[in-house]
Amino acid sequence: MRHLLSTGDLTRDEAVLLLDTAEEMRSVAERPIKKLPTLRGRTVVNLFFEDSTRTRISFEAAAKRLSADVINFAAKGSSVSKGESLKDTALTLQAMGADAVVIRHGASGAPARLARAGWIDSAILNAGDGSHEHPTQALLDAFTMRRHLAPGQQGLDGRRVAIVGDVLHSRVARSNALLLATLGAEVTLVAPPTLMPYGVERWPVDTSYELDPVLAKADAVMMLRVQHERMNAAYFPSAREYSRRYGLDAKRMARLPEHAIVMHPGPMNRGMEISADVADSARSVIVEQVTNGVAVRMAALYLLLSGARETTQAPTPEATSDTTHDTTEGQA
Amino acid sequence: MRHLLSTGDLTRDEAVLLLDTAEEMRSVAERPIKKLPTLRGRTVVNLFFEDSTRTRISFEAAAKRLSADVINFAAKGSSVSKGESLKDTALTLQAMGADAVVIRHGASGAPARLARAGWIDSAILNAGDGSHEHPTQALLDAFTMRRHLAPGQQGLDGRRVAIVGDVLHSRVARSNALLLATLGAEVTLVAPPTLMPYGVERWPVDTSYELDPVLAKADAVMMLRVQHERMNAAYFPSAREYSRRYGLDAKRMARLPEHAIVMHPGPMNRGMEISADVADSARSVIVEQVTNGVAVRMAALYLLLSGARETTQAPTPEATSDTTHDTTEGQA
Amino acid sequence: MRHLLSTGDLTRDEAVLLLDTAEEMRSVAERPIKKLPTLRGRTVVNLFFEDSTRTRISFEAAAKRLSADVINFAAKGSSVSKGESLKDTALTLQAMGADAVVIRHGASGAPARLARAGWIDSAILNAGDGSHEHPTQALLDAFTMRRHLAPGQQGLDGRRVAIVGDVLHSRVARSNALLLATLGAEVTLVAPPTLMPYGVERWPVDTSYELDPVLAKADAVMMLRVQHERMNAAYFPSAREYSRRYGLDAKRMARLPEHAIVMHPGPMNRGMEISADVADSARSVIVEQVTNGVAVRMAALYLLLSGARETTQAPTPEATSDTTHDTTEGQA
Repeated sequence: MRHLLSTGDLTRDEAVLLLDTAEEMRSVAERPIKKLPTLRGRTVVNLFFEDSTRTRISFEAAAKRLSADVINFAAKGSSVSKGESLKDTALTLQAMGADAVVIRHGASGAPARLARAGWIDSAILNAGDGSHEHPTQALLDAFTMRRHLAPGQQGLDGRRVAIVGDVLHSRVARSNALLLATLGAEVTLVAPPTLMPYGVERWPVDTSYELDPVLAKADAVMMLRVQHERMNAAYFPSAREYSRRYGLDAKRMARLPEHAIVMHPGPMNRGMEISADVADSARSVIVEQVTNGVAVRMAALYLLLSGARETTQAPTPEATSDTTHDTTEGQA
Repeated sequence: MRHLLSTGDLTRDEAVLLLDTAEEMRSVAERPIKKLPTLRGRTVVNLFFEDSTRTRISFEAAAKRLSADVINFAAKGSSVSKGESLKDTALTLQAMGADAVVIRHGASGAPARLARAGWIDSAILNAGDGSHEHPTQALLDAFTMRRHLAPGQQGLDGRRVAIVGDVLHSRVARSNALLLATLGAEVTLVAPPTLMPYGVERWPVDTSYELDPVLAKADAVMMLRVQHERMNAAYFPSAREYSRRYGLDAKRMARLPEHAIVMHPGPMNRGMEISADVADSARSVIVEQVTNGVAVRMAALYLLLSGARETTQAPTPEATSDTTHDTTEGQA
Repeated sequence: MRHLLSTGDLTRDEAVLLLDTAEEMRSVAERPIKKLPTLRGRTVVNLFFEDSTRTRISFEAAAKRLSADVINFAAKGSSVSKGESLKDTALTLQAMGADAVVIRHGASGAPARLARAGWIDSAILNAGDGSHEHPTQALLDAFTMRRHLAPGQQGLDGRRVAIVGDVLHSRVARSNALLLATLGAEVTLVAPPTLMPYGVERWPVDTSYELDPVLAKADAVMMLRVQHERMNAAYFPSAREYSRRYGLDAKRMARLPEHAIVMHPGPMNRGMEISADVADSARSVIVEQVTNGVAVRMAALYLLLSGARETTQAPTPEATSDTTHDTTEGQA
């Protein structure tokens, strides 16, 4: 792996390696000093063309927990908005020594363009591009599902996942659909016809316009966030109608099998796509998803930056981090 | 102490412990390496719903001097403003591993709500909430007074402090009044009738509408900042009238006893509530207040995060910091 | 050196020391851990009254690579804009423990005022003030020229440099003209008459209204950025005319001697003052300038903060950094 652009690029082995590494990273939070020295001296730049405080601080926490230096670059109001090209911005960041560039961009495909043009050597991590992809979100979702639904297993084979809501505009849905298929899960997208993406028949998923029949067989149900700014669009059902047909409340949650979990990428609109009691219920793993987000981002930064790129054999994270620990700190 | 929400919550022993710890912290700035490793691996989030660069960077400097990782979260323009609840923001920050959340909020009581709802385990530090409280400001004020007016003593018993100006809207005045009473000082609030808070008769203070008689007996006089946006309100005297009756100029400063000090929480409106020559005079400790602000915030972060919470016996800061010094860095 | 305000203040020895130190600093990027512990415990504040993401993150990267703590202070929207004086802002930053203040200000002379008023002890680094100076930009330009045009030499004696474009408003041009003269280079400013600064006859440079004759003899040509907001001003040629007469395209680049290099301080307006093929050509050192910017800023921070201020004899950076390396990390 040189970059993390799309979950569609990941082989099953790579996806499993990311999840296994994240498992190691999650345990760092239980150490007396909750940090690894692994990326000391490395610089991670958060290049955000759109505001997204949650995602930015999750990456920032991840990088700092690996002892990297973090530089936040909010592109709004910067020279970028004065007409500098994405190419020149990228060349600049690399020239300043950015080992990784975490990019959030309103235009679908911007991170891939950056990575594939061959302009720069820095690792590129897609932190959300338009309505295209949000791979670390999908990885943290898969990681959370694996812990709850397939502990001790590599993938999510045979697990049934319902992804519900405005699939059309959701990079979370797309990245999840691709990754979950790779990991062996069976995905059903649930949305009103106007919010089902064009060409969905080529996605590795089932689809449904009705939520209730899908719930009864789901191991996990992922409620997508409704964007307020879209609620008045012609293609959008009324808020009341949407909530009634596609929102998850306690009554509907009762249709789920007993072991099933409830997920949401956040931030939630309580009372809209999810009711407050469901969000706070014992089945909800929504807060744990946030914790796992830091672990998954640590894993991604670690695998892209820790030298695994230069060596043929990927080191086990445990061994490497310990070795680096001794060596690095012994000499510096 | 689990949180620092209001100076009214502090027992005298706790207040004295904070000031004594701040004394240790202040000396860190004189070391060759001006840092302690005490909070390495801990994460402090500055959650600011209002701009306040001074307070934010003072907390940031304090946390970094203790080797914590700092993440700045300006809530304006973030998902918070898209309707996410304070609860969900808090749950998110804790899930990301925030050990402390420093919160500045326009609504009085927001930090207390966060702490008392039982949503999160992170330590909450109130960095100013509405016109309610600003406890670290009061602590730095008390710390500064103790150094000048009661060196070698625990509290401020019998010292006379005048707090002058727009008391009605001042969280600084309220936090100071409560803390100074706990420490044994005698406080007089000086304000025009329209700027004296409702229910002030239940505060542990004297009040006066006239400044001059109070000055002659004061050991410290604290001039409050006038908010420009309030100066045109109906309850506000004209700027000229305010300055004439409640502003501190050289002539009026001459009424103070010789040992008395002049304070201001900053930023100052030179020429309004305080004249430039007074601000820069030998009696002014205004710049030192800023230095002490970092020391007091280090003390607060240290006491809330360093393990004192888990042990029954509070360690002396000297001993703990040294121990941590050896151990932490020996292993990492 | 106590401050870095203007390249005009630098003696030749000081300028050469900065460039030599930057040479050492550039090699840090090739170490396994790309960091020096030299400024551990020191605090660098980026005090930016104007947006300038590039310059800010270059200083931030430089300071972090020297292990300093960095605090970003965007003055817009802060108490500064509520009327706090530059003096009080400065006093505040010093009181918080700022060892260096990197200041970007819209008003020419603001950094010098800060440094010369004697208010504060912190080292002041001018990161661009109005249309006055931008000394670290000039240093990185000279550093880049020396590597390419005078390797192994101290200065740039006899090298010919053309600086082309809107010289009138360019702090880059002014800082370069002064520094390059000190280093022995021969500078020609090329601009239309309306964009040549008043009093240029007292600068240590030649001037020309025509670009082509100057190119044939240049060792380096530096294209200045055109500010979009100035393009409609009465004194400005039409964009087409400007580009035709003062822009650098491939055809015009062919007039340069074979060894000559093409420079630009960035961000570029591709197609305006420089064509895309020139910007990306083998002669362009524009990306390298960015890399060298970090090295030069490390050198400036190092020389101003590392103790060289207290000792009479300036230590060689190699020796000092190694010593500090051992000592610092041995004890902390």
